[in-house]
Amino acid sequence: MEGINNKHTQSLSREEMIRLLAVSRGDEAADCIIDNVRILDLINGGELLGPIVICGANIAGVGPAYAGAVAHRRIDANNAIAVPGFIDSHLHIESSMMTPITFESATLPLGVTSIVCDPHEIVNVMGKQGLEWFLRCAEQAQQNQFVQISSCVPALAGSDINGAEFPLDEMLKYRDHSHVLGLAEMMNFPGVIAGDSDIMDKLDAFRHLTLDGHSPMLSGKDLNGYLAAGVENCHETLMLQEGREKLSLGMALMMREGSAARNLDTLAPLITEFSSPQCMLCTDDRNPWEIAHEGHINALIHRLINQHGIPVHVAYRVASWSAARHFGLKRLGLIAPGKRADIVLLNDVQKVEIQQVIAGGKQVDSQQLTATSELRYQQTQPPTQNTIQRTPVDESALTLPLDIGERYRAIQVIPNELITCELPVIWQGERFDHDDVCKIAVMERYGHQKPPALGLLQNFGLKRGAMAATVSHDSHNIVVIGHHARDMAVAVNQLISQGGGLCVADEGEVKSHLSLPIAGLMSDKSAAEIADDITHLKNACRRCGVTLNEPFIQMAFLSLPVIPSLKLTSLGLFDVDRFAFTETRFSALSD
Amino acid sequence: MEGINNKHTQSLSREEMIRLLAVSRGDEAADCIIDNVRILDLINGGELLGPIVICGANIAGVGPAYAGAVAHRRIDANNAIAVPGFIDSHLHIESSMMTPITFESATLPLGVTSIVCDPHEIVNVMGKQGLEWFLRCAEQAQQNQFVQISSCVPALAGSDINGAEFPLDEMLKYRDHSHVLGLAEMMNFPGVIAGDSDIMDKLDAFRHLTLDGHSPMLSGKDLNGYLAAGVENCHETLMLQEGREKLSLGMALMMREGSAARNLDTLAPLITEFSSPQCMLCTDDRNPWEIAHEGHINALIHRLINQHGIPVHVAYRVASWSAARHFGLKRLGLIAPGKRADIVLLNDVQKVEIQQVIAGGKQVDSQQLTATSELRYQQTQPPTQNTIQRTPVDESALTLPLDIGERYRAIQVIPNELITCELPVIWQGERFDHDDVCKIAVMERYGHQKPPALGLLQNFGLKRGAMAATVSHDSHNIVVIGHHARDMAVAVNQLISQGGGLCVADEGEVKSHLSLPIAGLMSDKSAAEIADDITHLKNACRRCGVTLNEPFIQMAFLSLPVIPSLKLTSLGLFDVDRFAFTETRFSALSD
Repeated sequence: MEGINNKHTQSLSREEMIRLLAVSRGDEAADCIIDNVRILDLINGGELLGPIVICGANIAGVGPAYAGAVAHRRIDANNAIAVPGFIDSHLHIESSMMTPITFESATLPLGVTSIVCDPHEIVNVMGKQGLEWFLRCAEQAQQNQFVQISSCVPALAGSDINGAEFPLDEMLKYRDHSHVLGLAEMMNFPGVIAGDSDIMDKLDAFRHLTLDGHSPMLSGKDLNGYLAAGVENCHETLMLQEGREKLSLGMALMMREGSAARNLDTLAPLITEFSSPQCMLCTDDRNPWEIAHEGHINALIHRLINQHGIPVHVAYRVASWSAARHFGLKRLGLIAPGKRADIVLLNDVQKVEIQQVIAGGKQVDSQQLTATSELRYQQTQPPTQNTIQRTPVDESALTLPLDIGERYRAIQVIPNELITCELPVIWQGERFDHDDVCKIAVMERYGHQKPPALGLLQNFGLKRGAMAATVSHDSHNIVVIGHHARDMAVAVNQLISQGGGLCVADEGEVKSHLSLPIAGLMSDKSAAEIADDITHLKNACRRCGVTLNEPFIQMAFLSLPVIPSLKLTSLGLFDVDRFAFTETRFSALSD
Repeated sequence: MEGINNKHTQSLSREEMIRLLAVSRGDEAADCIIDNVRILDLINGGELLGPIVICGANIAGVGPAYAGAVAHRRIDANNAIAVPGFIDSHLHIESSMMTPITFESATLPLGVTSIVCDPHEIVNVMGKQGLEWFLRCAEQAQQNQFVQISSCVPALAGSDINGAEFPLDEMLKYRDHSHVLGLAEMMNFPGVIAGDSDIMDKLDAFRHLTLDGHSPMLSGKDLNGYLAAGVENCHETLMLQEGREKLSLGMALMMREGSAARNLDTLAPLITEFSSPQCMLCTDDRNPWEIAHEGHINALIHRLINQHGIPVHVAYRVASWSAARHFGLKRLGLIAPGKRADIVLLNDVQKVEIQQVIAGGKQVDSQQLTATSELRYQQTQPPTQNTIQRTPVDESALTLPLDIGERYRAIQVIPNELITCELPVIWQGERFDHDDVCKIAVMERYGHQKPPALGLLQNFGLKRGAMAATVSHDSHNIVVIGHHARDMAVAVNQLISQGGGLCVADEGEVKSHLSLPIAGLMSDKSAAEIADDITHLKNACRRCGVTLNEPFIQMAFLSLPVIPSLKLTSLGLFDVDRFAFTETRFSALSD
């Protein structure tokens, strides 16, 4: 009878299996053999000898017993060391600003043969249509693209307007897809700990798969409660002791190095031979600039080995095997018979110097990936509609009347942090009593044409001009900051005309912009091209006085109502600590 | 909506979960709190502080955050160290000669809170009825008794008569039972490597669960083929290098220390911090004598720590967490929130000195287990039929005519090994040309009343009398050895009248016997009682001249046609190397 095809094993067909066994036995020629190769032994430590025998997408055999084996094609690895393909255990493809197609082109040649993504950005914008597109992309990709089912869309009901709902009955329709490994990051940890029935329903529905977590700074009873509910991992670990406690209580740690959030240096000391099975690597939100200039998971491995002295067999284990085991992906994460032939050949294992990458038994050909990218993109039937359903704004909508002597709540930015503070400021007529106060506005872009919510922002560093974006977690409404309504309107209207993106305006004109017309989040350009646009945008920000490392990333979190303390959403100013809307103007409330 | 209840997570009901979370939060009193306890940190190494907070069968919280927590009941651990309950990753309960009920009474107080058994002995005797009984026992046990679905019943079709068939369509009826973790040891490794379709069907049907293996001495292409087919673990590893190769190719090792097969000393050097997630412990076939006098998994841990210098955190990890992870038992193997409260409190962690055992949140009470044993046994509706369907034998059926000068094939015994050799012997009239030759007979006991198969056995050490048993792997027919047909018939007929067991006869009478009336394999007596009977039997064997360590175990494998080289089944003398029946008398064949 036919076997059960389960995503956790991605089973071979009977025909594939029979052929694989014939090659294992030496009765049939292999499709490909890698000669002159050594393999890092990620179970015992040390090295194994090759060759590596490949049949179809899979490994038929490893070791000197195959010295005389016959193959249709041979690869001379020139004494390289082979390691399993790298696994990014948690990320948002949308944060790379690339489509899943171009993302693969950018990262597969860097050895990233598997990724586990949460598509909640695109699902917030366009609902299940976005998830379905990601799944179609995954089905055609050479990279193993696994797509978790977003658990928190919208992020915090009632705090903002987003593009779609994604309730449990909809989520369930995708749960059994062969590329789905589980429930995406459950961010509502208070709700988990409290046992909210909607959340319990979601956890129960995915309990037989993997339950991904998100629990920054949780410890003690809160952490115990979150784990008691069954959440299995976390990528939001900021402190060493926090990580140690999470590990000790059975939580797997996804050690994150993105563009803004960089926790690897803090957490690396937790990685030992003994703890390694519970440690994985991830990027979460990583810009195309970092991907193009610094790399991806390969860069994390390099950091672990060279800056933290992690032994190579431990570093390559946490980059592959540990994640494969965690997600029940029995046929990934090791160079061994029966596993998928996802192999990175390294000329220098300490320096992570990649000679070539084999994914699903085929050599990764960057040029081929790029050349076929546009066609394959079209074949996935991408969502092409304009998701910025907003009529152009007039300056008057971005004007904030201020009265002399009045006190106002400003959102105070903390450089390189996602948290903000509340700063009372007084308008003195020409200026505020504090330096560096500008305006911020957020307006929904899902067709409701609600007037922009207006507020004040302090310590961003913007001295002139305006910045606008449609990347604004998690609802991805239009956010704009600036001093003068005119520049702000120019920047916003540029984005509306482009179907989304990032923009810097000054002196009444657009100074720099990047179009992100796919869901207002992604471009179909390559990593290198988008990286150049980002450099151009950052330079434009500098000329406007901004000194923050990552101005657009910093701005992208000013609307996120699940990270403290004061945020501006399309519905107004939100006090995260009190979990309630408030007013910019103090005297507007009886407080 | 209701969650999916899956054996791998053994999910809590919604009600249980809500209560668990309330206790985690500190909003409700715990059922039990263990104070003055430290916990071995099996992820990081080192120790954690208690207390351990228990709600129902599960752990609600761990750590000093619960210092002031309220509980209905408290246990003062007196500064003991807590480790997770031990897991026997592969065994045959029948080999303990106890029922699953009394087996639990014997092993649960030794800290063995979970076992994964293959019931192929009882299934060979009485088919699915035996499996169903084991599942009923598992459902009522305090111990987690997992029951794999036997993959090779009969062991080798056509080589013997056994009690039942257990084909795939029958196997499938039990696959989704909450106590089933996968396919039991797939012993037909040649068939696996060859891709036999029946075997492929079985592997495919269980591929989403765990595929247990059995691959003694496999290496090179054979091992690669076996692994390519998807088999995940092996408990039949005899040599160090064999174990190292298996580990390097992704196979998990179950390191076995039974009564006859003792591989732990050989394999222990493979256990390191790095390899530990892929190393587990098992007993496979362990007599009640060893269980009563030496212990169970606790004894293996003791050996690892004290004789092999394995660090305690590594030893206790391979005794629990590694097996839990391997089988996808997410709620076992760690003392952590959300896991089952299976806890061993140790007064001395080096010496494995057990203070008390908690299983499913309840203290293990040996007296209570023993006192309720008979009633619980009856409640499982045990199979009570007499499975020895054999009319008493006459001496004449056990008489082997010998001609002077004729050459005969004798089965040569190798002490403490399961393999045998072929030894040609010549009958000289009064004696053979070799010392220590006696008769062996095997007769089926499943109602066919076939004449006994007769043969010769050399080097067993039996100088007088006869030994008989209904424990005879894997078909468990009646095996008897002796010099004189009279003693042999007495021994056999004693077993027939008792419904099965072990027996020593001499001088025409029974000298010692142990009744095993349940399937001809098990008794409902306690481990200690059976151990005494075994001692009595061994002494009787000694008086008959036998010097082997384990005479009945040695005899129990003389019929097993899957271990080389020459065996006697109920159908005749079997040449394992040529995979064909042969004759005791050389001249009976034209060879």
